[in-house]
Parts: sequence; structure tokens; C-alpha cells
Amino acid sequence: MSVVRPRRFSGTRDFLPREMIPREEMTAAVKAVFARFGYDPVETPAIEYLSVLKGKYGEDAEKLIYTLDYKRGTPDAAGLRYDLTVPLARLVASVGDDVPLPFRRYQIQPVWRAERAQVRQGRYREFVQCDADCVGAASMAADAEIIAMVRAALAELGLPNAVVLVNHRRILSALMEYLGVSPSDEPRLLRCVDKRDKVGADGVRAELLKTGFSPDLADSALDLFTRAAGDSDPLAFVEHTLSSRGLDATGVAELREVLAHLDDMGVTQGVRFDPWMVRGLDYYTGPVFEAVLPDLPHMGSLAGGGRYDGLIGLFLGRDVPAVGVTVGLDRIFTALEQLGRISGRSTRAKALVAVFDAERFPHAQRTAAALRDAGVPVALYPAPDRLKKQFRYASRLGVRYVVLVGPDEAEKGLVAVKDLTTGDQQTMPLEDATRLLEKAD
Amino acid sequence: MSVVRPRRFSGTRDFLPREMIPREEMTAAVKAVFARFGYDPVETPAIEYLSVLKGKYGEDAEKLIYTLDYKRGTPDAAGLRYDLTVPLARLVASVGDDVPLPFRRYQIQPVWRAERAQVRQGRYREFVQCDADCVGAASMAADAEIIAMVRAALAELGLPNAVVLVNHRRILSALMEYLGVSPSDEPRLLRCVDKRDKVGADGVRAELLKTGFSPDLADSALDLFTRAAGDSDPLAFVEHTLSSRGLDATGVAELREVLAHLDDMGVTQGVRFDPWMVRGLDYYTGPVFEAVLPDLPHMGSLAGGGRYDGLIGLFLGRDVPAVGVTVGLDRIFTALEQLGRISGRSTRAKALVAVFDAERFPHAQRTAAALRDAGVPVALYPAPDRLKKQFRYASRLGVRYVVLVGPDEAEKGLVAVKDLTTGDQQTMPLEDATRLLEKAD
Repeated sequence: MSVVRPRRFSGTRDFLPREMIPREEMTAAVKAVFARFGYDPVETPAIEYLSVLKGKYGEDAEKLIYTLDYKRGTPDAAGLRYDLTVPLARLVASVGDDVPLPFRRYQIQPVWRAERAQVRQGRYREFVQCDADCVGAASMAADAEIIAMVRAALAELGLPNAVVLVNHRRILSALMEYLGVSPSDEPRLLRCVDKRDKVGADGVRAELLKTGFSPDLADSALDLFTRAAGDSDPLAFVEHTLSSRGLDATGVAELREVLAHLDDMGVTQGVRFDPWMVRGLDYYTGPVFEAVLPDLPHMGSLAGGGRYDGLIGLFLGRDVPAVGVTVGLDRIFTALEQLGRISGRSTRAKALVAVFDAERFPHAQRTAAALRDAGVPVALYPAPDRLKKQFRYASRLGVRYVVLVGPDEAEKGLVAVKDLTTGDQQTMPLEDATRLLEKAD
Repeated sequence: MSVVRPRRFSGTRDFLPREMIPREEMTAAVKAVFARFGYDPVETPAIEYLSVLKGKYGEDAEKLIYTLDYKRGTPDAAGLRYDLTVPLARLVASVGDDVPLPFRRYQIQPVWRAERAQVRQGRYREFVQCDADCVGAASMAADAEIIAMVRAALAELGLPNAVVLVNHRRILSALMEYLGVSPSDEPRLLRCVDKRDKVGADGVRAELLKTGFSPDLADSALDLFTRAAGDSDPLAFVEHTLSSRGLDATGVAELREVLAHLDDMGVTQGVRFDPWMVRGLDYYTGPVFEAVLPDLPHMGSLAGGGRYDGLIGLFLGRDVPAVGVTVGLDRIFTALEQLGRISGRSTRAKALVAVFDAERFPHAQRTAAALRDAGVPVALYPAPDRLKKQFRYASRLGVRYVVLVGPDEAEKGLVAVKDLTTGDQQTMPLEDATRLLEKAD
């Protein structure tokens, strides 16, 4: 029979235990923080009708939706979810009064994007998103809560120094008006500004020219954003700039409210206004924010979100306010790796129970069963084999200890425990081995 | 703007917190048992090339693979995974020496099947599979380990009475030979036998006739299976039957080995040979098994699996023995619901922190923050509002307690805690409230 090439779908990843174990720990830590803030888990299907997915993300993003070869061209055509926010909006509209508002939910599931596979740049076609949203709360206290929760989650993951940059869509719109940019040109201009952390201010200028803005406008835009960001009080600078022309400054007032609520929640630092910070997606309507790591500026944002008061209304017919965040577990994992905080354990087992010989196989099985019953995770070598091979397996597996019952130990009712890091071997009662392994990393 | 109908893709489900909370608890319990047996987590992408997916499951199953509208008709055509076993085989073949054998892994991820949506019968187009496999162990001790682990997992979930029915593909083949059924007719006949728990022995007979077997053969097959199952020692009956004709009885010997290993691991009951038990999928080659619940016979199997020594070889070019199990989390969840073991909590929050009025909103926020810092999950009402409305929200949310700081409490540095089940309200220091809520369900 011909062999099938075991090709993995381009742009996707397999996760072996040495990646999965720290990822599961990370996810558990984030979930625990979400739960403390009253957020509960939800899951939605991977497949959604195209009528649900389309017209929400903007033209460029929409091209990246994977569609199924299933009832194509009919109203039942369907595709894979692109994010977790549109499915949440669909869910809230579906369940109606089945969930009381405000509805605080988190959702940790994969999303799919038909990117050209640029694995080197960390763009994958499948990745896990981790979202938390508060639906049905118009108060800026909800935005503050989400920001406080993101900081708590990052702190729980060992990143207490993360800084949350905030901005407001209405501030950005008012600044565009100040610059004389028409509402229809606004998204295009903001998309250039959004690239600043990757290409720098000069790069933004080049982008603006390339996108068709005049050199004059490019200069005034860069000047405005640079002066605002460089001011000792950027929010006051923006407020003064907008008020001087009679432009809408409600965005400033709302950000001040967010900061005051954060203060009441005990978050007195690590959150600041950054006029350069623009979130890409079309559906945001109010405050937007991103968490970054001053220690690793090249990482980009570890989490980001904002208020999207219009999205659920697309499904429901009446507006429902909502604010949420996506925590970038992949990036956080990479950041923790670069900071040397990922242990790299490739198994949760604390020991390999080796098999001395065929006659002592039942002893090995009983020993493994007893250790498991005591709650100690162990892997049993599944058959009699050369001991050297079993020890080599143990060290490749990544366990520190090997437990062995030879004829002597069997007779005395003891077990031998070998520490692979030191080479020491000790004979002891099973209860002592249990205690030793319980305490081991 | 016209409203988009919030339709959920037919045959799929949304999971709200009241389902997700017990599901997450269930999953965590199963993972903990898997870890105790030395099984570590793995994840693979949802999308696999069709060249990987096709030719593994049998004709009927293959029709149920969802394909993507992406490079159709090319070697890069792809679809959604149908199970977790074929992706595991592909993974093991891809990573080569990157994982030492035996490789014990578990994987808990959704799979997709393009079923006609028969939601009433519990057939969904997307459902979570929970697999554990031991790859690279030919010894029957690995089969015994998987069976012991399934029993431990079911016991951990509160189902210690589950019984594991075992059979062996070689026993079934030998019985087919005994009946004079050709190897090419074998799968068709076994598929009829497989339906016995749903349609009964008479139903199997009808199926056999419908599928084109002669009345004589139908009668002898039913007679053989009925006599074997009804014998006081079905395994001895089968062994005697096969030996009397000089037919292959190695399946019997292997099942005896499995039972002996189980005995050594302390599993002395709850596992029995059942000649009627046939697993559907084509790739099994050795022992097969299913866990059922005598208390709820109509539920069908809660978990099932077996040995598939040929599958990985399709990708690798040399055979790698493997044995595994799929734990049916959906069915187990339904079983636990029917047994009244699902709590039905719709939030993990232990209290709602209500907002007395605008002036006391900061007090509410500080109180919520302090409770969270102490590890107590609480939801904060996000704005001042009528208290009656906030209390109604609390009871709809499903929390037992409401914590409130009014003017009196604010002045004295106390909080009021109302128990919604009794209506009692008490004023106390925050530390007492923390302790009370910590102890609450």
C-alpha cells in the first residue's frame, strides 16, 4: 500500500505536550481571573452562516473568511468563524431573554483566517482567541472593568508591568475633522496611523502619501499626533485642541470617566491615553485599548479591545451596548518564552514506573496503580524490556524519577526510586516514594 | 439598516454558562485522570488536507467530511477533521522522533460531520471529542491501561457503575469464518450485529435479511451470538467453538491477557466480554471495547475504542501499534443530567455587588475589587440603577448573595449581605463577608 504524506495544513500548527502544558496553565490562569470578575464561559459553533459573518469586519478582513464547499451560493452557505465577537453578537440576539443583561461572558476557541501562510511572521490560519465581553452595559464602568481585568490577567500570567494604552473612536473622528479629513477618508487615514508601532512616524508619512493623501495633510497629521503624544498631559492637549475649534470632545470626557472608575477599582497606574493607538476593526464606537509590554516593545499588543455599541443591533434591530477584549494567548506565550518564563516540561508525569522483568510486571502495575490512587501522575512502561532502554525513554519523556521494583524490592515490599538528574537511587517504602513524588516539580 | 437574522448553523449548538460550567468541570476531571495515567495534552488543526482524511473511515463515513471551498480539486484541497484518531496518526508520522514512543496523549477538540441535522436524536454536526491514545505499545498491557483509565474517568465523573464490554476484531473475524461469511461480507454483517443494542435481536435479523443475507445465515448468526452471550463463560464458549473447527483463537488469548493485566492494576470487576459488541470503524485490528451504564441502558456507549495497529503505518510506511479511546462527553453529560447530577449553576460568581446610588458607586467598586483580591468571584452591577432591578438581575443571574454598601454601611466601613434564598440581610465587616462567600456554594 502506498504511503500517504503526513502533511499538516499550511499555516497551521500541531501542539505537542511541551507547548500544550504551559498553554493549558496559561488558559486556566486567565479563566480564573475572568471568573473573579463575574465572567462565565460560553462556546459557539465553528461554522456560521455567511449571512452572519459578512458585512461586519470590513472589506479586507472579509476576504479572509474560509467558506465551506456546502450549499454554496444559497442562503445556507456557511464558513468558519473569523473572530468571537460576531458569533457573540449572533448568540445574544438568538437567545434573547435567556440571558439577563449585563451578560458577562468569556469564550476561548479557535478562529480561522485564510491568510497567505506567513508562518515566520507569526500569522497563522488557525489560532485560539480568548475573548471577554460585557454586553448590555453602557456605563464607562464596564470599559474600566474590562481594562482592570486585562491587567489582572496579565499580572496573573507574570506580566504585571504591562501597560494599557487607551484611545476613543470619537476622539479620533474629531481629530480627523480637525485635520479636515472627510468621514469617508477617515478609515484609510487611521489605518496608516495604526501602523506606527511597526513602521515608525516616517513610515506612517510614507504610507499616507502612498494611500493618496497630500504631503500637506500628511505633515499636519503627523505633527498633530506627535505633539499630542509628546505633551505632558496628552488628554488635556487633545481636549484643548478640539475645544478651540468647537469640535466634539465627548470622547475625552468618556476616557476621563474610564480612568476615574479604574481609580475606584484600585487601578491607579499602568493605563494611559495614547493618541497613536488605533484599533483596526470597523465595529468599534467608543473607547479602544491595547495592552503592551514596555520590556518587549517589538511584541506589539498582547490584548486589545473596545466598545462596539452598534454590532449586536445589526442582528437584534435595537442597539445593545457592549465592550470587550481579545487576549492574545499566542503572543503572550511568545512573550513569556522570550522572558524565559516557560518551563518546557514535556509531560505532567512525575515518574516512569519501569518494568524490571516479565515476572515483576505485575509489581510494576500495582505500584503504578497505587501511586495514581494517591494522586501522583505516573507513566508505566507498557511491557518488559531492557532496563537501559526504559531509562533512556524516561529521560526523553522528561520525567525526573524512575520507580522500579526488582526481585529484592518485591520481596521486602519496597520500591527503588532513581533520580535521573543526580543518578542517585534509593530503596524505600511505597508511602515514602509517594511523598517524594508528590513534592517533586 | 435591515436586520440580519441571527441564525445558528443547523445541527450545531451554542453553550451558555449553565451548560459550559458543568462541561468545564467534567473536562477538568477527565483531564486530571488522564494525567494520572501519564497522558499529556496535544492539539492539532481543525483543517486537514483531504489526502490525509480520505480512505481511512470507510465509504459511509467519508461522505460526512466537510470540505472547504478552497483549492477544490487540487492536492491542497482540505476539509474539517472527522475524528481525532486520523489527525493523531498524521501527527505521529509528522513529528517522527520528536516524541518518544510509547507516546501517551490526550486530545479534547471538536470534530465535524456533515450529518443531516437530526438534532432530536442527539446527532450534531459539531461535537467535542475527547480521545486518549497510547501509540507505540504492542503489549496488551496498553489496552488494559486504557480500559482502566476509562473506568477511573467515569468513576471520577460519578459513574463508578459503568461496565466496559470488550471484544476482539480477530474473534469477530473467526466467528464470521465459522459462519461461512466471506471476508468481503464481514463488515456488512457486523454492521447489522452492531445495531443490536438499538433494535434488539429481532431487529438484527430483519437488518440481515434487508442487507441481503439468507434467512439460514441470519438464523445461524443470531443463534451463535445469542448462545455465546448467554453462556456462563462466553469467552470459553467462543474459544471452544473456534478451536473445535481449528479456527484462529488468538483474539481469545489476547482478551485473556487484557483481563489479567487489569487484574494486576486492581481492576477486578466491571469489565466483561460481550460477543455482540462490535465497533463500527474500519481501522480497528485488535481488542475493542465500549463503556455502558447498566442504570441507563438506552444511553448507548459512553466511551469506546480499541486497537488500530495499521492506521499510523498508512502515513509512516511501517506499522506502529496503537490503542485508544474516545470518551463521549456529550453522552456522559446527558447521562449525568438524567441522573440529576448536574447542578445547573448559571454563573461562577458567588455574589452580585449592587450599587446603592451614584455617590456610593465607588464603594461598590472598591468592595468588588477587595472581594476579587481575596479570590471570591463577584459580578459588579455596572451603574447606579433602581435597587429592585438590581436584585431581580441577581436572581436571574443565579447568584445567592447580593452585597450592598449604602450610606450607613459606608459610614461604618461595613457591607450588607443579603441571602436571596432566605431574604435575610446582615451587616458585617468586609472580612466576614469574604469568609461567608468563600464558604458558599
